[in-house]
Amino acid sequence: MKKYVIALGGNAITGNSYEQQIESVYKTLNNLIGLMVNAENKIAITYGNGPQVGNILIQNSAAKLLTPEQPMHSCVAQSQGLLGCMIQTALYNLLLKNGIQRDILGTITFVEVNSNDPAFGNPTKPVGPFYGKLEIRELLCQNNSGSFKKITDKTWRRVVPSPEPLRIINSEAIKNIFESGNIPIVCGGGGVPVINNNGELKGVNAVIDKDKASALLAGSLDADMLIILTNESQIALNYKKHNEKRLTCMTVADAKKYLNEGHFAEGSMKPKVEAAICFIANSANRKTLITDYSHLVDALQGENGTWIF
Amino acid sequence: MKKYVIALGGNAITGNSYEQQIESVYKTLNNLIGLMVNAENKIAITYGNGPQVGNILIQNSAAKLLTPEQPMHSCVAQSQGLLGCMIQTALYNLLLKNGIQRDILGTITFVEVNSNDPAFGNPTKPVGPFYGKLEIRELLCQNNSGSFKKITDKTWRRVVPSPEPLRIINSEAIKNIFESGNIPIVCGGGGVPVINNNGELKGVNAVIDKDKASALLAGSLDADMLIILTNESQIALNYKKHNEKRLTCMTVADAKKYLNEGHFAEGSMKPKVEAAICFIANSANRKTLITDYSHLVDALQGENGTWIF
Repeated sequence: MKKYVIALGGNAITGNSYEQQIESVYKTLNNLIGLMVNAENKIAITYGNGPQVGNILIQNSAAKLLTPEQPMHSCVAQSQGLLGCMIQTALYNLLLKNGIQRDILGTITFVEVNSNDPAFGNPTKPVGPFYGKLEIRELLCQNNSGSFKKITDKTWRRVVPSPEPLRIINSEAIKNIFESGNIPIVCGGGGVPVINNNGELKGVNAVIDKDKASALLAGSLDADMLIILTNESQIALNYKKHNEKRLTCMTVADAKKYLNEGHFAEGSMKPKVEAAICFIANSANRKTLITDYSHLVDALQGENGTWIF
Repeated sequence: MKKYVIALGGNAITGNSYEQQIESVYKTLNNLIGLMVNAENKIAITYGNGPQVGNILIQNSAAKLLTPEQPMHSCVAQSQGLLGCMIQTALYNLLLKNGIQRDILGTITFVEVNSNDPAFGNPTKPVGPFYGKLEIRELLCQNNSGSFKKITDKTWRRVVPSPEPLRIINSEAIKNIFESGNIPIVCGGGGVPVINNNGELKGVNAVIDKDKASALLAGSLDADMLIILTNESQIALNYKKHNEKRLTCMTVADAKKYLNEGHFAEGSMKPKVEAAICFIANSANRKTLITDYSHLVDALQGENGTWIF
């Protein structure tokens, strides 16, 4: 029996329309069925929500004269509804097709952050649509309270704070599902960020890194393995340089050394490696596997992916 | 120890903006705290989503040139995210304030309906915004596939099928939370409606009656009591007529008789009384209480509300 937390990255759910997105979810989840066949294994699934929460923000903005805009944390919760529904539909059907008896439950997961986190003074996480020069000028003239960041020569995006996740607030109820062998779908988009304001929880405008939230969840569920699915089959040193070196495995000590040497890009492999380090900490039993969807089956047999332990 | 399913009606969550809505959620939930103090009690909360799913449909429509519209069942799931987040925030804070140790989890609940349900040929449930004469003419000219119903002399609304709920698909995972003493927030807006299409689940464009879904849930959790909170403190015969008679209690046999006599209005008390009958069936232990928020505490002591058994 093993306990797995599996984090689906952005390219688990590609495409624009509902039909395109659910088709890509089926392809992704089909690679996870092997882990679910063994009835002893416990499994929780987390996922990113970048494009979807972006679309919900666009919809809120487009209709703002007709119906009040929702705060960003509420849009994150809506994206958990949207994506939880999509993942749940695909996974129910794959389990049925494969004769696997497990129940599934999409959830609205809250994750606590510190209201004094320095990230609140330095928004870095791009969310929502790309804006052109005229649009960004208009937004800034409207005395819009958000921060924007130049992405390319002619495009800007809104950036929001990305504070460190401290605690999975719903962890006891999630554990009820996970320990029974049913599958909770949790921490969508890193979770709905909430602060504890003198004993009162309050949603805040921020987006938590979903890999860091997944590591925290894996710790709170006392998982054996955190699987982070992304768009590369392996981690590399000197990524995309002439001396690129792909890694089959590394220890936490190696990982820390490579991080310090600057091998892993911000907003890409860096938070994933940090999540792995955070989850494994000093445990001799915990492992993290980083790979892509199509290589997961091979990677679980030690024939691909990067293993961290 | 008692097992409760509590269904929050539309006026549990009033107001238009996020701030107004969450304030009304606090007021409503504050009346439930008495049931939660007893650690032995098991509690699940369901809720309606009429205005909120209407707003999400407006937002989808307003932004349709910018980002693809989502199917209606996906909008129901988004409203479960939105409202699950709101109810969860308020309930966590009320539990904290009252020193009650229970976890809470908002969920994406699927409810199975029959694809041959006659409701699919006869849409009756109004959803979304009111349209004026010009707007409705435009919508009909666009060969819009939806059905519309005249509500007043000058307004129309979209109507969607409201099929009978057959099965709470996620009931095992919900039970994991409920039986542990934690509180699942479930069946929002009657649940995301799905059909079983030759062994494949598929979301459909419909809105299930939330009281009927709550009765089904209460049955599957083997609850002792279904509490339906609405905008009247008691059920009445000859409602709003000179000979109106308020009921303190009635048996299932009485309820069936009054239903046949046409005492209860469609889309109002009728589905609530039908839900009560369905839940209680032939059980000697099951009861349903129908009342409003402000009289719940009194009603639980037998001093208000209408009890059905």
